[in-house]
Order: sequence, then structure tokens, then C-alpha cells
Amino acid sequence: MMKTAFLGLGVMGGHMAANLARGGYDVRAWNRTPDRPGVAIAREGGAEIANSIRDAVAEAEVICTCVGDVPDVEEVILGPGGIAEFAKPGAIVVDLSTIGPAAVAPIAEALKSRKIQFLDAPISGGDVGAKNGTLTIMVGGEADAFETCKPLFEAMGKNIRHCGPSGSGQGVKLCNQILCSLTLVGVCEAMLLAERQGIDPQLVVEVCGTGAAGSWALSNLGEKVADGDFAPGFMIRHMVKDLRLVQEALSRYLPGVELADRLFKVVRDLDGGDGAMQGTQAMIRAYREEEN
Amino acid sequence: MMKTAFLGLGVMGGHMAANLARGGYDVRAWNRTPDRPGVAIAREGGAEIANSIRDAVAEAEVICTCVGDVPDVEEVILGPGGIAEFAKPGAIVVDLSTIGPAAVAPIAEALKSRKIQFLDAPISGGDVGAKNGTLTIMVGGEADAFETCKPLFEAMGKNIRHCGPSGSGQGVKLCNQILCSLTLVGVCEAMLLAERQGIDPQLVVEVCGTGAAGSWALSNLGEKVADGDFAPGFMIRHMVKDLRLVQEALSRYLPGVELADRLFKVVRDLDGGDGAMQGTQAMIRAYREEEN
Repeated sequence: MMKTAFLGLGVMGGHMAANLARGGYDVRAWNRTPDRPGVAIAREGGAEIANSIRDAVAEAEVICTCVGDVPDVEEVILGPGGIAEFAKPGAIVVDLSTIGPAAVAPIAEALKSRKIQFLDAPISGGDVGAKNGTLTIMVGGEADAFETCKPLFEAMGKNIRHCGPSGSGQGVKLCNQILCSLTLVGVCEAMLLAERQGIDPQLVVEVCGTGAAGSWALSNLGEKVADGDFAPGFMIRHMVKDLRLVQEALSRYLPGVELADRLFKVVRDLDGGDGAMQGTQAMIRAYREEEN
Repeated sequence: MMKTAFLGLGVMGGHMAANLARGGYDVRAWNRTPDRPGVAIAREGGAEIANSIRDAVAEAEVICTCVGDVPDVEEVILGPGGIAEFAKPGAIVVDLSTIGPAAVAPIAEALKSRKIQFLDAPISGGDVGAKNGTLTIMVGGEADAFETCKPLFEAMGKNIRHCGPSGSGQGVKLCNQILCSLTLVGVCEAMLLAERQGIDPQLVVEVCGTGAAGSWALSNLGEKVADGDFAPGFMIRHMVKDLRLVQEALSRYLPGVELADRLFKVVRDLDGGDGAMQGTQAMIRAYREEEN
């Protein structure tokens, strides 16, 4: 039974660690803050909770991290007391966070000098996908490391793709976030027009959803946009981070991304900053603010 | 056998008139310019080609128009020698053009004074949908007129919806065009990022297409955007018209629509104006222009 470690037990990480354990892997899981729901979820799924990074990773052949933004990933892997200090040579570190392509190379090189391989493997599919094991996992890095880890990925996700060399998983993930964001701009503006015309939003979803205007966002978020149901889904604060990474990855001006970013930030700053915790469909609130 | 007229035999109109005739209707079809491909298509499908609007509509119970922009529709219905002069009381005029909700009321009222009913019934689905009888038809107007015409719509399309009172078919169609345009902005910007990262566009289509980033535009136009295949599909000049109607329909500022409109107009003006004849996926050329 392959020994694995899983660091970062947020709601998604907790479910993923649990699915790894259910898939027959020996999982030692660790979270910086121990009293979180994700820790309980991982434990209930069969993961053993470790008291330190050292305890989690020392024996592991594959070490997964799912921790958030660039500094968090750098710290847990390369920081004092981090993975690089305690992982054994020959181990593979798989980072499931979205950190953009630029951050990948320094991490991969630092690990390589210790004979540890690195895969960037950002995920898509949200809490539900993490729970049900239906995530999309976009993997960049050496093909042999990908093949070794593929069965693990299959325990956590459904649509698993090797995207190319190191960093390319991050590249595809950022494309994904661009697509999500702009589709949502369209849904918001279409719903505003529907409202102004007295047209039932459900009708727009049904009629437009089957043709050239169709999208996942229209079918799944259209009515939520219209009805003001802003429960996440995918939180605005994560999307703002991801669009920052897009802008860092690409020197050129992308006016659509810039627009979506501006709208998300308006909502992020509402309710004393609590807007950031709402689902991306709350983008419509930026338009409502402008109207007031 | 119900007597119908069909005015406006562009490529879409030609196929729709042919499908009406194939559906068992007596179709008298007319086009301002007789030597067009759509005229031949209608004739081959079994429509009889009329020499004048009078000749086409005098006996018709339902009169379809599919002619382009607002002035064209107004002229063929209300202009000298137009439908209103020759149609018999009790007839129903069905306009399949996209003219926006504002233009509908004056036409409907002018016809009502002659005891002629009016349905706005804009279509979506392109040349292929017109040919195969798989169009989406979004209908606004009185329910009884809609019910009378429903079998005709079913001869021309697949997804037929009564959207509500007069003008609401146009309203839904404009929502559709907003959605198409913004989804395409996302596809263009995602493909630019993929290109910069050396990522295969097909990979982006496959990986992102199945989840929250998925859309008809990504699946059907993504690779065309990346490969520079700009054959229409749906022409930029029609979309520029439709986005003008969106902006007329809604007094408020829609930044996404404004962005898409600006990008389409950059492409429209390329190649001495021939850019307007390309498919909407040629939007990517606006970004390439900015890079030069």
C-alpha cells in the first residue's frame, strides 16, 4: 500500500485526503490549524492525522499539498520545517493549489536538488467535486512522475490530464478561470437585460442554454444570479487570486479579464469584505451597486 | 393546406421557406433581389416564387419576413407596396429578423389597425440550423397567434418557445447575443494565455470544456479561434447590429457588451471592411491587431 501524505485540510483538501484513504492509500494528513472541519472529514475517511509536517511526510512516497496562495505553498514546501527538509529522496510532491505557472519553476528546482520530483496539479470542480471524487485535475511535470501518481489522482478526480511540462497544469487552470469569469460577465449582463424587459430568467436559461449561447455558467448559475442566491460554489476571493495570477502570467493587457477582475473586486469589498466569501455569481452585485 | 408567404430569401430565409414547403405548406416566396442563392433554395424546396409582395401575401394566412435590420423590416411591412397594403384582415405577420424590442411596438400597432396580428420571432442556430430545421425560435406576441403559427415554426425549428407579450422574443434573442459575445471574449483571452504558455488549444477545449468553464463557444469555436479559421458561422456584421440593438434596448451601461462590441468593430473594419463577413470567432484578430 503506497504511503502518502496530504497537507492542507481545507474543505476541499479534507475530502480529497478522505477519498485517497478510501481508495486504499495509507494517508498521513496534516493541517496547520487542527480544529477545522476538513481535518475531521479526512479522519472520518480513514486518513491518520499527523502532528507535524515531518511526521506526515517522512515515510511518504507521494506528498500532496492543497494550501491556497503562492506564499503558503512556498512555506509548506520550502520553508523552515517544511516538506523539503523531511521528505525522502525519490518522493514526489504534488501541489493541488492554484499558484500560476511562474511560481512553479523555483519550487520544482529547489526540490530537484534534493532528488524530489514536483508536479503542479491544480484542480477544478469545487467542494462538490472534491467530495464526490469528480474533480478535474490538470497536471504539469515529468511524464514518469505523472504515471506514478495517476492512480492517486483517479482516487480524487475524474477528468485527469497530463498537460505537459512543469507549470502547464497551472497554465490550463488559468485558462479555465478566464473562461469561467467571462462567461459569468455574459450571464450577468443577459440577466440584467432580461430583468429590464420583464423576461423570466428561467426562460433565458432554457431557451439560450441549448444553443450557441449555452454554457455551464448559464445553466448552473443563471437563476442564482437572477434570484440573488450567492452561496458558494466557488468563492470570489479565490477567483480574485486566480485572476491576479492570470495577469502575472501574461504581460499583455486582457480587457475581459480586467473587467471581470474589477467587478469581482467591487463585490469582494462589499459587506465589510464579506463579499469575498460569496460565490462568483455574486458578480451581479457590482452592477447593482453601480445602479445605486 | 394553409397558405403562407415568405419574404426575404437570404441563405437562412431560403432554407426556412424550403422547410415550410416541405412541411406541407403552400408557400409563396419573394425576395427583393431575385437572383440569389436563397431564391433557388426556396424554389427547389417547393416554394413558389412570387414577383411582388402583393403577389406573395394577398392570399396568405401567415406571412413570414426574414430580412435583416430595422429599416428593412419596417419597409417590407409598412412601406409603400408593403405587406400592410395587401395582406388580408385576420392574417398573421411573423417577423423572424432580429430588430430589438423597441421596433416591435410601432409595427404591431400599425398592423393591428388593419386587423393583422404580429409576432416577433427571432431565430438562432445559423445557416446549419436553418437548413436542418433545428433553429431555436423565440416568439413574442398574443398566445392565440402563437398557437396558430406553432406548426409552421415546428417545420422550421426545433426549440420553439413563446416568450411572452409582443417584443419578448426580441428580448430573449438579445440576451442570447450577449451570452454568445461574452463567452467568446473568454475563449479569445483563454486561447491567448494558452498560446503564451505553449499549451495546445485542443487540450484547453478538452480539459476546460467539461466543467464550470464549459460553453458551446469553447467546444465549437475554441480551436477555430486558435487556428485562425474564421469562416462563418455567424457573421460579425450581424453581431455588431445585434449588439447595437442591445445597447438601444437598455439605457444602462453594460461594460462587457461594450467591450465585445469594440472588439467586433475592430475586426469589422479590417481588410477594407471585409472583416465584417467573417465569423464571430474572428474576434481574436482584434487582440492580434493590438499586439502589432
